[in-house]
Formats: sequence, structure tokens, C-alpha cells
Amino acid sequence: MTPTIGVFDSGFGGLTVLRALIERLPRARYAFLGDTARLPYGSKSRRTIARYAAESAQFLVREQGAEFLVIACNTASALALDAIQDAVPVPVLGVIEPGAMAARQGSTTGDVLVIATEATVRSRAYTAACHAQGLRALEKACPLLVPLVEEGWTRHPVTAEVIRIYLDELMRDAAAQGLNPDTLVLGCTHYPLLRPLIEKAVPAGVRVIDSAEAAADAAMKLFGERIPLPDAGQPPEPSLRFFATDSVEKFERLGSGFLGRPVRNVELVDLGG
Amino acid sequence: MTPTIGVFDSGFGGLTVLRALIERLPRARYAFLGDTARLPYGSKSRRTIARYAAESAQFLVREQGAEFLVIACNTASALALDAIQDAVPVPVLGVIEPGAMAARQGSTTGDVLVIATEATVRSRAYTAACHAQGLRALEKACPLLVPLVEEGWTRHPVTAEVIRIYLDELMRDAAAQGLNPDTLVLGCTHYPLLRPLIEKAVPAGVRVIDSAEAAADAAMKLFGERIPLPDAGQPPEPSLRFFATDSVEKFERLGSGFLGRPVRNVELVDLGG
Repeated sequence: MTPTIGVFDSGFGGLTVLRALIERLPRARYAFLGDTARLPYGSKSRRTIARYAAESAQFLVREQGAEFLVIACNTASALALDAIQDAVPVPVLGVIEPGAMAARQGSTTGDVLVIATEATVRSRAYTAACHAQGLRALEKACPLLVPLVEEGWTRHPVTAEVIRIYLDELMRDAAAQGLNPDTLVLGCTHYPLLRPLIEKAVPAGVRVIDSAEAAADAAMKLFGERIPLPDAGQPPEPSLRFFATDSVEKFERLGSGFLGRPVRNVELVDLGG
Repeated sequence: MTPTIGVFDSGFGGLTVLRALIERLPRARYAFLGDTARLPYGSKSRRTIARYAAESAQFLVREQGAEFLVIACNTASALALDAIQDAVPVPVLGVIEPGAMAARQGSTTGDVLVIATEATVRSRAYTAACHAQGLRALEKACPLLVPLVEEGWTRHPVTAEVIRIYLDELMRDAAAQGLNPDTLVLGCTHYPLLRPLIEKAVPAGVRVIDSAEAAADAAMKLFGERIPLPDAGQPPEPSLRFFATDSVEKFERLGSGFLGRPVRNVELVDLGG
């Protein structure tokens, strides 16, 4: 039987990771879980996040038969990857290490910028992962970008202006620290929807790396050979199941923009507490 | 002994209500609780919100000896006022009914606009409270305004532009429905920090009403006579205690802007799951 890849996020931003996975492995079966009842993870303690993430991972493996897991959530990847790996007997991949590895492959100067949510930046996980790759990293929290995406203003002049302000501040800070960055990592699963505006705003010579795509590339290396290849011609309709722990309505309404195809029949599940 | 007024919010936005209370009743003692570990309430079910709010109210009454409660949270006022009144043996005041009553006093046309968070708008609580006052109401969710306030952009051109866009949409919708509004209610405890920008953006003839101030006026009527009057001259330093269930750091860092004076010594409390 075709293996199932479980994809987990605290919300539905991780649908951008699922989208990148489907592009690369269209014949896998996918089960996506958004733990929407308990988001945001970012304001919670590491212990609580680890427990929530482990419960979500166990649902995907035990109830949905996932043979591989992709943690499509920067906060859970930063704070709970070990706990998830301990909780389930299948290979588990986060988004942060693939992002840092893609940055190393793309960077000539070795100086990397990362934009992410406040919680991800506070965890310093990208800085640590970049250091492990021999890179210097400067992270910046961009707390307005997720609300702007969720408002649907992904091509809006206000959003372009906010991005310009954030990137100006980041480039100034980088210069003040003597960095010469040539790579910008999108360290939040919402940000791929802003990629066209971000590409326009970055200075010449800075390449944008999407950690969602980097994670999907890493997944293809890790377990791609277990997935059947697509037939030539039209890609098949992917096998998708969606689960959420709350607010199915918002998930379906906003999710399609993240996935690039309709998100329907989201099933409500109760993981307790 | 001087009575204690308990003030409750899911976060720290309710500090704008506390500020308005202190201006009117400077000699009361205040205990403010922000249930920051369990925010946002807006995405949770009515039953869960009622339980959280009742636990918070009981903490203020039983542990802090509050003799009056002000629910400085629109979501909890909209969804859990009854549950709170059932849970504690003291007078309880929300922010929504006072906002609607102030609108009735201020409005000549009887047509009222309300801006608030998505959760508050979805509850239709302001519409119901306005109808009870014989007013017609049109509500609009403005989901970017809270993140803009929390980013500290309370006087920023981007924020002015976002407010202009939201109010233009709201005025267009009002005209399409044949309304002739002369009153705009700020139905979120974060919005008083944007009042200068909002005042600039509303059309001539539309008066801005702050539900935080309306709630403080109502509190003064309900239990003001039980609070000693201030001496003539300089107002006294108020007696304030702050409690939060998580993230004391953000509470102290951002809270001062809401309260208009330093927020220090926030005490961490555990209300359980």
C-alpha cells in the first residue's frame, strides 16, 4: 500500500509545506493535522508544546497509519522535535534544519538572515541550526506578517510597506553587526504566501529560501524512494485527509490559499486537554 | 477597609479599562488578572470560555477579596457574563452593555457602528446589546488592529492607512444598508491606544465611544458610592496588584502603554489546565 505521510502543524500555515510535498511526491497519501484548538503554541511553555505535539504525532501515526512525519510548524520543530521523535516509532522531519541546510547550499558569504514569528525567534533555533552548518545568522521577528496573511492581504500595498520596513530594519542591523548577508530564510509557514512581495523588497544579491520547500526537499531525500513515482503526463489527484482540533470553518476558508487547491471535508478530532 | 475592585481580562488589553477606572475611582484598591496562558479566548468554545472566566473570577473574589468585578474583556463579556455572575457572589459588570448604553446616549440617528475583533463580531453581542437599546448596529471585525497595537505602531502611518481602509469599508457597508451612523463604538480593549488615529479617520459627524470608558462610567454608577472620594489636590498613588497566568515579561513590557503608568511586579498565578 502507498505509504501515508503525516504532516502536523499547530494551525494551518503548514499547508504550505504540504503543498511543497505534493509537488514532489504526488502519489503519497497525506494526513494533515492542525491542532487549531490549542494554538498558538508560541506563547506556551516548552513542556506544554512537547506534550501537545507528541499527542498530535501519535494521532497521525496510530490513528492514521502515518509511516513518516513532517513537522510543518516552526515552533514545534524548534521546541519539540526530540519529544516527537521519542513519542512515535517513525522517521520525523522538522522544518528548521532543512532551512539551515538549504541556506548553507545557497550562501557564498556564510551570512544568513531569518525572518520568523516572535516565538520562533525567541527560541534561537534557526541561529543554532545555522551555526551547526557553519553559517552566521541574524533573526528578526515580524509579528505583523501572519495577521496580514490571515487578513488575505498577500498582495496589498500595506503589506508591501510593512515588509519594506521590517527588511530595512533587518539590513541595518546586519550592517551594524558587520554581516554581509546573501540569503534570507522564510522561517514561518505563512510567509510563502508573501514570497512575491518579499522577493521585490530584498536587496539585489540576496536570495530567498523557503523553509517549507527546503523541508519538502529533505523529505524527498529521506523517504522519497518509498513513494511510487507518478505516471508520465498529468499529475494524479493527491490523496488528502485533513484534521483539525477546532475551528474547521477558518481552516477551510483560509486553507485553500496556503495549499493552492481547495481544502474540504476537514474532520474535527478531539485530542483532549 | 477600602473595597477591592477585581478587573479581569484574557490578556492585558483590559488595562485600558483599569486605567479608566483609576481615573474615576482613584482610591479603590485594584486587583487585575490577565489569563494570558489561555488566551486567545476568541477561538475557543463558549463552554471553555465560561469555565476559564469563572475560574479567573473566583480567583479575584476568593483569593484577592474583590467585592466588585469588571470583566474588561469583550469576548468574556459577550460569551460568559452569565457564567461569571453565577460563579461569584459579587456584582459583575461587562464592557458590552455599557458601550451600547453610551452609544444610545450619544446617538441622534440611532445608527451605530462597532469595530471589534473577529471573535467579538462573530458573537453578535454588540448588535444584541444595541438592539436592546433601540439602536441599529453594524459591526466590523478589524483583525489587524490588535497586532498593530502590540507591535507598538500606535501612531504609525501604516496603522493610519489600515484604519482608513477598515473605516472606508464600514462606511460603504453602512450606506449600502441605508444606515446613517453618527456613533462609532470601540469594541476592543486594545483600540483606545488607536483613538487619536481613529478620531482622525472617522467622517465628520461621527462620534467615537470607547467601551473601556463607558464600562468605567457604569462601574462608578454601580459601586462608586462605596469607594472613598479622593482628597482635594494631587490624586493619590493607586493601590494596584497585577496577576498573570503566563508571559509576565510581555505583560510588563506592553502593559504600561495600556495603563498609562508603569506595570511592575506582575505575579504569576496558576489557575490549572
